[in-house]
Formats: sequence, structure tokens, C-alpha cells
Amino acid sequence: MEFTPFPSWPDTAPRLIAVAAGRQAADLVVRSGIWVNVHSREALPDHDIAIVEGRIAYVGPDASHCVGPNTRIIEAAGRYMLPGLCDAHMHIESGMLTPAEFAGAVIPHGTTSMFTDPHEIANVLGLDGVRMMHDEALMQPVNIFTQMPSCAPSAPGLETTGYEITPEDVAEAMNWPGIIGLGEMMNFPGVIHGDPKMLAEIAATQRAGKTVGGHYASPDLGPDFAAYVAGGPADDHEGTCEADSIARVRQGMRSMMRLGSAWYDVESQITAITEKGLDPRNFILCTDDCHSGTLVNEGHMNRVVRHAIACGCDPLIALQMATINTATHFGLERDIGSITPGRRADIILSSDLKDLPIELVIARGQIVAEDGKITVDCPHLNWPAAARNTVHLGHALTSADFQIEAPKGANRVQANVIGVVENQAPTKALKAELPIIGGLVEAEGEVCQIALVERHRATGGVTNAFVSGFGYQGRMAMASTVAHDSHHMIVVGTDREQMALAANRLAEIGGGITIFRDGEELALVELPIAGLMSDSPAVEVAAKAEQMVRAMQACGCKLNNAYMQHSLLALVVIPELRISDVGLVDVRKFEKIDLLEPLA
Amino acid sequence: MEFTPFPSWPDTAPRLIAVAAGRQAADLVVRSGIWVNVHSREALPDHDIAIVEGRIAYVGPDASHCVGPNTRIIEAAGRYMLPGLCDAHMHIESGMLTPAEFAGAVIPHGTTSMFTDPHEIANVLGLDGVRMMHDEALMQPVNIFTQMPSCAPSAPGLETTGYEITPEDVAEAMNWPGIIGLGEMMNFPGVIHGDPKMLAEIAATQRAGKTVGGHYASPDLGPDFAAYVAGGPADDHEGTCEADSIARVRQGMRSMMRLGSAWYDVESQITAITEKGLDPRNFILCTDDCHSGTLVNEGHMNRVVRHAIACGCDPLIALQMATINTATHFGLERDIGSITPGRRADIILSSDLKDLPIELVIARGQIVAEDGKITVDCPHLNWPAAARNTVHLGHALTSADFQIEAPKGANRVQANVIGVVENQAPTKALKAELPIIGGLVEAEGEVCQIALVERHRATGGVTNAFVSGFGYQGRMAMASTVAHDSHHMIVVGTDREQMALAANRLAEIGGGITIFRDGEELALVELPIAGLMSDSPAVEVAAKAEQMVRAMQACGCKLNNAYMQHSLLALVVIPELRISDVGLVDVRKFEKIDLLEPLA
Repeated sequence: MEFTPFPSWPDTAPRLIAVAAGRQAADLVVRSGIWVNVHSREALPDHDIAIVEGRIAYVGPDASHCVGPNTRIIEAAGRYMLPGLCDAHMHIESGMLTPAEFAGAVIPHGTTSMFTDPHEIANVLGLDGVRMMHDEALMQPVNIFTQMPSCAPSAPGLETTGYEITPEDVAEAMNWPGIIGLGEMMNFPGVIHGDPKMLAEIAATQRAGKTVGGHYASPDLGPDFAAYVAGGPADDHEGTCEADSIARVRQGMRSMMRLGSAWYDVESQITAITEKGLDPRNFILCTDDCHSGTLVNEGHMNRVVRHAIACGCDPLIALQMATINTATHFGLERDIGSITPGRRADIILSSDLKDLPIELVIARGQIVAEDGKITVDCPHLNWPAAARNTVHLGHALTSADFQIEAPKGANRVQANVIGVVENQAPTKALKAELPIIGGLVEAEGEVCQIALVERHRATGGVTNAFVSGFGYQGRMAMASTVAHDSHHMIVVGTDREQMALAANRLAEIGGGITIFRDGEELALVELPIAGLMSDSPAVEVAAKAEQMVRAMQACGCKLNNAYMQHSLLALVVIPELRISDVGLVDVRKFEKIDLLEPLA
Repeated sequence: MEFTPFPSWPDTAPRLIAVAAGRQAADLVVRSGIWVNVHSREALPDHDIAIVEGRIAYVGPDASHCVGPNTRIIEAAGRYMLPGLCDAHMHIESGMLTPAEFAGAVIPHGTTSMFTDPHEIANVLGLDGVRMMHDEALMQPVNIFTQMPSCAPSAPGLETTGYEITPEDVAEAMNWPGIIGLGEMMNFPGVIHGDPKMLAEIAATQRAGKTVGGHYASPDLGPDFAAYVAGGPADDHEGTCEADSIARVRQGMRSMMRLGSAWYDVESQITAITEKGLDPRNFILCTDDCHSGTLVNEGHMNRVVRHAIACGCDPLIALQMATINTATHFGLERDIGSITPGRRADIILSSDLKDLPIELVIARGQIVAEDGKITVDCPHLNWPAAARNTVHLGHALTSADFQIEAPKGANRVQANVIGVVENQAPTKALKAELPIIGGLVEAEGEVCQIALVERHRATGGVTNAFVSGFGYQGRMAMASTVAHDSHHMIVVGTDREQMALAANRLAEIGGGITIFRDGEELALVELPIAGLMSDSPAVEVAAKAEQMVRAMQACGCKLNNAYMQHSLLALVVIPELRISDVGLVDVRKFEKIDLLEPLA
């Protein structure tokens, strides 16, 4: 371990008491601000905060009895003093950034606590990868709690991951210092059917007194939903409408409403509070997935809180949903989530509760950002070679690897085609009649080829299929080692030569995203850590990702945010059609289907 | 241990899931009631509840898929289905009943969870006594969680208890299955001044992830209060006015508002919610101390909830304050406090939310009371002889033990007299000029004698003093081994012969309360367990206690509820004057004072 645990309340209590009583001096006093009190739901003018050893010792009308000659004073000068914001469920890998660089990107936005599920790296590097994320998380100047991934693979039997997570792994991880609970239990059919492996993971978490994350991605609120709830997940962020949110809260779960880069589930659910008037304590805000561009250009949890307020939510309730509600959910209400004695001194100064400008950020009693600029170091783990060398192809690929052989004697054939839908994660199961040329089925028109290239065990396996909807034209290919959830490599292209070029390029650099056209690389995002993350700053990664999007457009793609579609095409838990190393998968039935069918 | 632990959620999950999904049959279904949902704060008509293995498997509009041939059906028939009520802080000993008999008394009132601090027995029998209470608690058909007593003695140096509680005791108890946290930290001056012993007890509790109970009995909300909060207590039930309650919640504590037999602190504090509109989630209802008569004649937590509603509180908020708020406070929101899947099936049927008649009580899936009558057994611990034999006098007492010798040569003398105040715990420090007869100071008029008789270590010690305000006349004495907090024996009388008779009588029967007049015993309440509790049913104890009150009146006492005054006269943490085995104590200064002074 390369971190020093942050001292606990009882470790610090003697000094907290002495400062509160005025017998010792505080390290830091924040003076004359409006105390945003998320316990009582009040904004209380003219309060001071005294801090010692990174924790809050005193909050009251006058902290002058806590001030000594070495006490640093910050003048809040009538501004709001808010608790640091908490992101209740998220995947750091979605930012294509390591925990350190992710922290560096979000701290200036006022995020001081994150609950992260390193589910992506678990698929690539197993428990070891989770431990690396966990360890780098604990090195940061803010609070990053790790949710132990529960479902690698997400769909057992329908895909092969780099590693599998077992109940024994879960039980072991529950003893790590930074583990706060179990990551989203995506295998909801498994829970509903009483799968002993899923129940063992949940049981290990509950017996450790930790929180089981949920993921029920179905609109069915009948007995299946009831069975899932009875299995133990304590929250869910997959709701998309008011009825979903209300059902979860009524059943004793917490409804996590997300606004990610591509998730817009707050506006449709927050009416449970703003219109139906439900007790807001069990509603929580989160991001789930944020791209680096969103972090650089729009913000993080401050963006979510602003959005909730813009949706008509009372600002104090919106702040509760990003602070104390989250802390309470994870059993941390005595440690984070409010500006009260004993808690970590995570404080934001802001001059407006609606626009929420993040003017100063204090985390654990230290100024960590000022006026949008980070002022502390976010230390990097010394990532081992195993984490930097994860693209294992069985052999250098050629166009032949992407050939789709036709049934003998046919002129045309009917293919099952994955239909991409703009701005949505689900795909459509389409059919297309395709020509056969030289014994090979050829894509044409809107249809182009897609391949899943095995990259974990160097099997040399390539699964070929067809995809429609990107609008690519000319001779091009795009490849990505971010390929949810098993994170093999997905290659989409109009030309098999370009597909081979793109795939080999990613093997060469250890993973990332690339686009080739006519033999030339148009854009490249290097993601050397597990083929998922960069250890460069978010601004650099965002710039490269932006270039990648422009290259996709240059190749004819007119979809909004189509990289998301690309990286989700192997996500065999979301309907309707997906690709995996096992083959083409009909997620409506959770079974493999044939790529080609005889013409009717 | 004589109990079988109640199966946990993960123990039961496979069956809960199977029942919710309709693959297995429920043990019990409650049909067609109004679901009082304390998570969303709604009352939802036409809901069913399915229960298996004592936990809730399903709550929804129709549980017919959970019904099998052996499923018992209870028709709610449009009545309210409420979560069983929780008492967030209480002392079972105050009912003068063992945990089993206390449970038997309160279950018909709908109380299914209690958080009890066996502080009284800790003073008499130490950690062993706490363990006995804890063990009998775990044998009951409802949930009795034990708070480890923190302060025995309550006032170190000013009294000698039977046993002392040490930080090591606290650390050990944190590993017992029924311990939920630390009992009220009454030594608030100790916390404020950083007493290492008190901080060690708090730290042991926090490190075990459990809840530290508070007790800040001072109106001062300045730096002393801040220092106490910084020490770590997570709740407080000593607030008496709206400002107290608001201050606690703002500082991140939970405000416990109590209505006990002699505590009336709800009405004066609940305006924080009903008028000031604070977020109610951090307010909790409790009883603290209830006499058996209150339990028999008025109720328990149902009485408190009704009272809160009568004070203008929304019934659903009042119910939250007696269910989910409490559960959340103790980290039990996934186990008790609401009618939702996975939780213990603790359910009340009631046809009215305001009057709150308790028509049927289900605890852990079992019908435990119907129409005010208990329908289950509340098993008794096999209390050891050490617990039944706790009145150890050094010798049989005679009137000579109660003689107060006068200073030589004086005719009259001035005495410091404890002044009893009707309906209040605090006393007044009075002075009285008293005659000297035959070298002894004699009480006269309103003043009578009080003695604290040592009963833990058989030292033979008797502390004599004077008390005023009871109004006793004739030749009488009253003695009690319930004598907060050290629980020696308090004898009050107008006649030293009667005082000796009363004291010896309690030694003979192993503790309790007795009243003698003219050599005849007028009333007797036997409290054989630690001299504090009876293992007879509440109705019998209440009848004897009622007879005792009538006997006090027959001896001239006109005060309301004067037994409370009697039993609190040794409580050396509440001003102004008290008696202890050390002498007469001025609690305003926390120091011993002389009984007699020269006449001015």
C-alpha cells in the first residue's frame, strides 16, 4: 500500500474537542459564510467553521475562540459553505482516465467523494485490477470509495472475460480498507432465479455490513422486480421514469438518478419529489458514466445538482441528494456528507445556490481547488507492466480474419444485423439481404462489418458480424479496446484491410481507440492502462477524444455521440442484438443466434 | 447463550426471492391493507404483504402468487399496515420489570424494537449484569438491542457503585451479538474536558461501527456543547426546548424527543418540525423511562406517537420518527423499521392513524398480540443467584444507625436540606434550623430524615441527611433499593425505628420498595432481580406500585408521583443537592458539602 489511511474521528477526537472548547487552535477557520445545513435543510447565515487535522471541530456563530497565531483564515464573506459533493455511483474508467487523473478533473468541480465500481478493469485484469484501482483511489486527496465489482462476466456463458469475479473474490475484497460495498448487481435474472453465485456475493457483502449496489434494467415492476428487491440490492440507478423511481423507494431501495455524459434520467424521475411530494431522503444523484470531455467542458456532480435545480428541485433538497443522502446510504453519515463536527472537512464555497459556481474547494481540511484550478497533487500508482500490456492478439490480423464466408451455392443471403439507435444504449435486431461476392458475404449501403477481436487470452478469435446505422462511407475502420463489458476489441469498418490495420495498431500501442481511412490513421486515443484508461490529464484525453469524434464524422457518421454506440456493441446484457467472442447474441432471449439465415 | 439468533437477510434470501417470484409459498400473507410506507412517506391502499421465515418477501398490489395451501392469510380488510414501533432509547429497569416481562407488557402496544441501556443493573452487577439483560433480551420474540452502559459510576468520586464500567468492558461488549452501541454518555463534563476514559469508550464504539448515545443535560449551547458534539455522541434525548432540538440536529446529531412516565419533552421540541419546518429525518421518538403503571394503563411507543400527532405532527412523520428514523440511526434500516422486502416482518394492523388502536401485532412473522393481549411466550433467563441476592448490609440496622449527632454544646443547628420539587428531577438546596434533643439533630415540620444505606459491598455504611417536601406525618419510613444511579438503598422517614424496619425488610427480601408506619408494612414491591426488577407480570407490579403510592399518600405525601423523587435523591449528576454513600453532594459544584453548619 502506498497510502496513509486518513485518521478516523476517534483518532482525532481529543484535538477536535480541544479546538471546539477553545483550548487549542484550529488549523483553518472559514469565516462568515452561509452554512448549508443538509441535516436540518436550512441555509444559515453568519457561521464560522473551525478545522483541525482535516476534520471539522466546530461550526457556530463565532469561531474566534478556535483561532491561534498559526490558524489560517479563509473569508467566506457571505458566500455559501456547502458540503463537498458525492457521486454515489460511477465508473472511473468511463472517463478513460486513471483514478488520479479523474480526481484531478473533478475536484475543481467540487466533487470530494466518489463511490466507484471498477467493473471495466475487473473484466480485463480481475481482482488484481480492482486492487490497483482501489489502491490509487486511496492515494488521492479526496474520498474515493470502491465498490467491489459483482458481475464479471456480466452474462456468463454469453461472453468470455479476461478474468472472472467469484464470491471468494468478493469476500476477500470486503476486508480491503477502501471497499464500501458491492458494485451494481447487473445479473438481475440470476438474482431473480436464485443463482447461488450471485446470492453468495450479496451475502458476503451484507455480512460485512456493507452496501449492495443494484442494477435492475427492466421496465417490469411485477414479481420479477419484487424478487430482485428481495435478493438484497439496496439501490438502483437504472430507473428511467417516475414510476421506476417511486417503485424503488417504496420497496426500501434508494433511487439513484443519473446524469452522465449520455444518461439523462434525472428530469424524468425527479417529479417523484417535485410533483408527487415523496420524502426526498431516499433519492440520490449520480453520474454513472462521464466522458473526459464532459468533465472538462461541463462539470461533474455540480452539473448534476445544477440540472436537478433546473428541473424544479429545491436547491437544498438537490444538495441533500448529492451529500447527506449518499453518505447515509453507504453508512458514512458520521464521516462525510455534511458540514458538522467530526466529519472530514470537505467544503465548497459558492456565491450562488442555483448556478452553483465552485469557487473554492476544501477536502480533508486542505484547499484542493480554487476558481476551477486544482491546487494539489493527485498521486499516480506505479502501474505494473501487467496493467499496461493487456492487448493480446493471437497473431497479427489480416483482412482474411474479417472475411464472412457465404453458404455454398447462394447468391444472396439474409443476415441478422445489429441496428444502432441514436442516443440509446439498446440496439435493434434488424435483418438485411446482402450480396455474396467471391464466396464472401459483403456489407453494402448502411450496413458495414463489425468484428469482436479476442484480446485477453490471445486465442486469435475473431467474431464477425454486421452493423447498421453509423453511416460510414469510403474505406475506413474504427477499433476500440473499450468494449463493454468484457472489453475485447470491437472493430467496425467498411473495409477489411482497414479493419486489420486498426486492430493491429491497438495491439501495438497497448489499447485505445483508432480510426483508419484509406490506410491513414485519422485519430488515436491511447489508453495504455488495461486498454481502458489514460494516465494523462483529462484535457489531453478529451482533446484526443474530440478529434476521434471529428474523424468519425469525417468518415460519414452523423449520429450524436456515436462512440458510445461503438463501445457498447458487445454489451450482451442490453437488448436486442450484440456481438461477443461467443458469437452474435440475441439479448431478448439471452441466447446465441446465427449470423446468416437462408433467404425466405 | 439460551437463544437462537434470528436468521439474517442473507440467510433467508433464497426463500424470500422464491416467494416473491411465486415459486414457493409464503408462510403468511396479510391481505388488502393500507401500506404505510415510511420510505416514501405515503399511505398506499390495497396492498398485500407476503412473509416467509419471519421476513418480508413481497409487498405489492397482489400477493396471490405467493399463496400456497399452507399459507396463513390475515385479512387487513382496509386497515393500516404499520411497521412495528421502535423505542430508540430506554431503560428496561425503569419499568421495574425484567426484559421478558417488559416485552410482555409493551408488545400488545405495538412495540417490536427497543434500544435499551441497562445502566441501572450495570451499577449493581457490572458487566455480568449487562450480559444477563442482553441475554434475556435476545431470547424475546421481538427485537431488543442493548446499548452498552458507559457511565458507571455516573459521577466518579462522588459515589461508589457496585461495579465500575471500564473502556475494556466496552470494547469487550462490542463483540456481543445484541450490542448496538454505547449507552448515553452522561459524563458530559468528562467529554468536554477530554477525559481519556470516556474518549476510549467512545472510540471503542466508533471503531466497532456502532452508535454512540449522548446525554447532554445542560442548557448551554455554546463551546461546551460544541466540544461535546465533537467528542462523538450521535444522539441526545436530554433536550427540553425547541432550541435544544434544533441545535442537536444542525450539529449532525439526532434529536431524540421523549415522552416517558415523567418526561414530557415532545411537545416543547416538536415545533422544530411542525412550525419551523426542519427536515424531520433526524428527529426520533423515545420513552427513556416508563413505569409499569404507564405500560399497563397508557401504552408505550403508541402513546408517544399518539402524543406527537396530538401535538400537530403529521401522522406519517410521527410514525417515521418511531420507525425508519430510529432504524437508520442505528444502522438497521435494512433490517427493521419499514414494511419492505428483506426486513423482519414486524407489522401492526390499526384502523385509525390518529388514535392508533393496536389491533394486531406481528413480530418476525409471528402474531404476538391481538386486541391488547399478548399471544406468545416471553422466555425468562435463568437468573443466577448473584443477581437475586444483591442487598448486602453490613449488619442488621437499628435506629442508632440513623442518628445524626449534633455538634457539642449547641441547642439548635442549621442543616443543608434536600428540597424536593413536585414533578421535577432537580432538587433545591435548602437550609433549615433544626432542634437538638439528647445530642441528636431532630427533623421537624416539613423536614424529615433521609439515609443512603450502602448495599453493594456490605460496608455497613449509612449516610444520614435531611429532606423536605414529601409532607410525611406520623411515625413512618419508606425504603427503596431503586436509587439512581448507584442503586444503594434510600430510606426516607420521620422515625428512626421505622427506617430501620424498612431497610432490614428490603435486605430480607432481596430488594424492592417498602413503606412502614407504626411498625406495620403498608405496601411492598418485591424487586428480587438486582433489587431493581421483578420477574412478575407488569400488571402485578403495577398494582403493587399503585398500592405503594397510596401508602405514601396515607402517610401524608401530597406530591404527584413522589416515588420518582424518592428514587432520584441519590442521582448525583442532577442539581442541586443529592445524597450518596460519600455524603451530601452539591451538584452545582460537583463537590461534597457538610450536612450541618453553625447557626449564623
